[in-house]
Amino acid sequence: MAPIRLAMVQTNPVVGAISANLDEIFAQVRLAAAEGAKIVVFGEMATTGYPIEDLAQRESFVVAAESAIAALATRLSDAGLGNLYVLVGHPALASEPNGWAIAQNSASVLHGGKVIGRYAKQHLPNYSVFDEYRVFVPGTDALTFEVDGTRFGVLICEDIWQSGGPVAMLRDANIDVALVLNGSPFELGKQATREDLVTGLAADLDATVVYVNLCGGQDDLVFDGASLAAGPDGKVVARARAFDPDRLVLELEGNKVTKVEGNHHADASDLALVWRALEIGLRDYVNKNGFPSVILGLSGGIDSAVCAALAVDALGPDRVFGVSLPSRYSSDHSKSDAFDLAARLGMQIRTEAIGDMVQVAEDQLKLTDLSAENLQARIRGLTLMSLSNSEGHLTLTTGNKTELAVGYSTIYGDSVGGYAPIKDVAKTMVWELAKWRNSVAEAMGQVGPIPENSISKPPSAELRPGQLDQDSLPEYDLLDALLEKYIDERLGRAEIIAAGFEPAVVDRVIGLVDRAEWKRRQGAIGPKITGMAFGRDRRHPITNRYREI
Amino acid sequence: MAPIRLAMVQTNPVVGAISANLDEIFAQVRLAAAEGAKIVVFGEMATTGYPIEDLAQRESFVVAAESAIAALATRLSDAGLGNLYVLVGHPALASEPNGWAIAQNSASVLHGGKVIGRYAKQHLPNYSVFDEYRVFVPGTDALTFEVDGTRFGVLICEDIWQSGGPVAMLRDANIDVALVLNGSPFELGKQATREDLVTGLAADLDATVVYVNLCGGQDDLVFDGASLAAGPDGKVVARARAFDPDRLVLELEGNKVTKVEGNHHADASDLALVWRALEIGLRDYVNKNGFPSVILGLSGGIDSAVCAALAVDALGPDRVFGVSLPSRYSSDHSKSDAFDLAARLGMQIRTEAIGDMVQVAEDQLKLTDLSAENLQARIRGLTLMSLSNSEGHLTLTTGNKTELAVGYSTIYGDSVGGYAPIKDVAKTMVWELAKWRNSVAEAMGQVGPIPENSISKPPSAELRPGQLDQDSLPEYDLLDALLEKYIDERLGRAEIIAAGFEPAVVDRVIGLVDRAEWKRRQGAIGPKITGMAFGRDRRHPITNRYREI
Repeated sequence: MAPIRLAMVQTNPVVGAISANLDEIFAQVRLAAAEGAKIVVFGEMATTGYPIEDLAQRESFVVAAESAIAALATRLSDAGLGNLYVLVGHPALASEPNGWAIAQNSASVLHGGKVIGRYAKQHLPNYSVFDEYRVFVPGTDALTFEVDGTRFGVLICEDIWQSGGPVAMLRDANIDVALVLNGSPFELGKQATREDLVTGLAADLDATVVYVNLCGGQDDLVFDGASLAAGPDGKVVARARAFDPDRLVLELEGNKVTKVEGNHHADASDLALVWRALEIGLRDYVNKNGFPSVILGLSGGIDSAVCAALAVDALGPDRVFGVSLPSRYSSDHSKSDAFDLAARLGMQIRTEAIGDMVQVAEDQLKLTDLSAENLQARIRGLTLMSLSNSEGHLTLTTGNKTELAVGYSTIYGDSVGGYAPIKDVAKTMVWELAKWRNSVAEAMGQVGPIPENSISKPPSAELRPGQLDQDSLPEYDLLDALLEKYIDERLGRAEIIAAGFEPAVVDRVIGLVDRAEWKRRQGAIGPKITGMAFGRDRRHPITNRYREI
Repeated sequence: MAPIRLAMVQTNPVVGAISANLDEIFAQVRLAAAEGAKIVVFGEMATTGYPIEDLAQRESFVVAAESAIAALATRLSDAGLGNLYVLVGHPALASEPNGWAIAQNSASVLHGGKVIGRYAKQHLPNYSVFDEYRVFVPGTDALTFEVDGTRFGVLICEDIWQSGGPVAMLRDANIDVALVLNGSPFELGKQATREDLVTGLAADLDATVVYVNLCGGQDDLVFDGASLAAGPDGKVVARARAFDPDRLVLELEGNKVTKVEGNHHADASDLALVWRALEIGLRDYVNKNGFPSVILGLSGGIDSAVCAALAVDALGPDRVFGVSLPSRYSSDHSKSDAFDLAARLGMQIRTEAIGDMVQVAEDQLKLTDLSAENLQARIRGLTLMSLSNSEGHLTLTTGNKTELAVGYSTIYGDSVGGYAPIKDVAKTMVWELAKWRNSVAEAMGQVGPIPENSISKPPSAELRPGQLDQDSLPEYDLLDALLEKYIDERLGRAEIIAAGFEPAVVDRVIGLVDRAEWKRRQGAIGPKITGMAFGRDRRHPITNRYREI
């Protein structure tokens, strides 16, 4: 039996851009065919992008996607590529709707100008950021097909994360190769779990498992590619790039991979992966939504410095505009550190002193204390939004996860903006990322982008003389450790205290987190990098009088 | 067989306030006992309030609720009420967690100081605003119990909205009375559907069906009470109050109701129901979150006038603070209409002219055209938030559903605030509500709260000289009809055009709706009154290039 060549293709689709996504799929099939591939496998919902959320409940949308798939089959055939087997994900109308859910999360096999097989995902994730039970009808049947004597089976993402169902069906069907289409977003530590899952499945099925993921950013998710294949011996045999589009070709003989072209394997540190996820998330939000550039306030502090460095890495220095917004309380170093940062990054910076605007409002409204502090933050927000409106930039808001957790921000002030690049990054990790990014630059003989001073000085909102974050918050090391317990691990008060935290600090921090829910609800989206991001991942009521004692 | 007396009790729990909620339940049982009730039925999750969202995934929370239920059983018994059968809803730990879901949506029968039976909801709603498949593990078993020869069965809310499962189990069990605990939020037209469902179920089961709902506001939902009972002849035999807490007593003989004490039946118009829902939603958000008062900008226009009238109905005039925020473009009538409104409502009003604040920012930032218009709205927002900060009011934002749909608002400007009272009310209905509210006042010999001028003048944002909403938007009658097709009915472009709308207008409006998603995502919550509210009800991606052609 001659070996069969199979191409794994991870694309970066744009949600809703069906025609452009299919042009890219067509182009990739043509390239794969030129490389001798007989079978080409794309990711979950590569046709429409993923997740499509409630677009799946719009009949016209689902029909458009299905029609596009039929047209792709014809187009491939017309281009002389009808002899290939192309497996691509898309939504399809369910034969029996289930309430609001009218579609299935599907994958079609295109061959000979037709759809010769269609599979619908059976296990629908409905936890974390996923609402698939809301928008899809689960499938019930397995799909297998044979090419030159090799038997293939099809699965979609969550199908392999839960026991029973489609995996058992494929086990019974004695397939040689399982093709798994995925839309699996990045999260720290997840790739190891995926590899365990895929290698375990390969051994279980006595088959090669081909796992194809998407890549690119979509709103608050970043798909990190890193597609892989594992053989029946439970070993990984092929790896695609992390985060970027990629195509690699396997040679299959029976249930084994005998050759790989385009293999990649780069061990990266957690910080390197996080940086890349943040960079891709920012880049794709800006580009997929058609913004020419971004604008952000540069305070001289670590958060805005890291956001600026990310933006320059993502978009280049010409598309990043910084504004120094000094008040009467701003220290000299806050201004000089901001200009130092901009110079290191090669980005633009201008100064808009907020003193006059603050003064006239403060005098008229007779503001003092906290309301006067908030006023400064809001005048800064107003200034950035005005420049965004008049010059067309997307405004970035630079708050980190720790601030969001405890509500240490001014709503409609420093929180203004359409995208929050470090929303899911705890303060302690912001510092680590800054040091890591500088070390990478230095290792390449470049100047580190982030001023040492921004890393080393004690953080301050500079809304009153001599103010430091640590005047009103616990030390960040302690605070982040406590937040991890409460938010990520969902522990109760007693368990957190048992883990060694002071009861008074626990009560204070839990209270801050709960009371800040209304602000978080009005916050910008930003890329998820942890197992529990604020937003779709954690849905708490605003009105909530629960207080553990 | 002597008749059995059963009390239906609809309470207004506060989410998370377990102890206070149980105090109220205890007090109601005592009152019901004094009225001779042997059985007392409360609503779904009356213990914790509803919906608890991801609090259901916190083990400490679920354990606290379960412990409170056990304590309530003891407390009832200690108070000499152990001979009653009390049926109350609460979360309980599932014996087998399902991923992130660790709890079941449960109801316990308390008797003799103990929990003598527990039921777990089998059909979990996971559409519209509900995410129950996310947070709960479905139950599998029916619960029946017998009191003095009458057989009761227990169901929870969605159980009766779907066929099969628990209803079929109760049919097989030949019960006399089905007790249904509900947390069913208000939506225009829903009560008729509920009555059809309950009467149909009673006839189907040849039993009396006792349907007990919650009442009160919880974030973006308003539970409208209106509990009811229907007999095996398929007729409604008892109705509780709409929206307010209530208790009524049925006398049961076998499967029939022979007497009702406390029956209510008040036919109310759609506008009356909507007004009440908006009023309760606002009142409970303010009170349950502990705000002393609310503040809002009064422009002289219809939206802020209706919001102010709602706030005064909900909280009384002493807790409502209005601010006239005139700019150089504000007409004389906008100021005089605002003061007229405040006088009619007996609420406070002050003037904060924004001219000086706008001027200094406009000059410094060199703003013109749209960015200068947005600036005015943002200075108004900043002013309201400053007064909120310094005086402790909750800020109300007065945007209506039509504006939110097409993005006709300034983010961080007129959108600032923690609660949006008319967020789900289309502009055309805002006018209807104003006229209705005035007519009610006039029918009672009072002055209508809303100035006629605010109702009759053409709407304008007054951000430039002579500006009218209709300069940049289609007529509101047409616009609301089109939005209904696109948003509520989820029709595609071709279907909307086929319904008689101009293609160019359809394209323009659909484009506006899609592009405003990012603003809506950062908007305040407000009460749902339609079948498709913005927020949890409609989850669309921000990054979305889908454009129908």
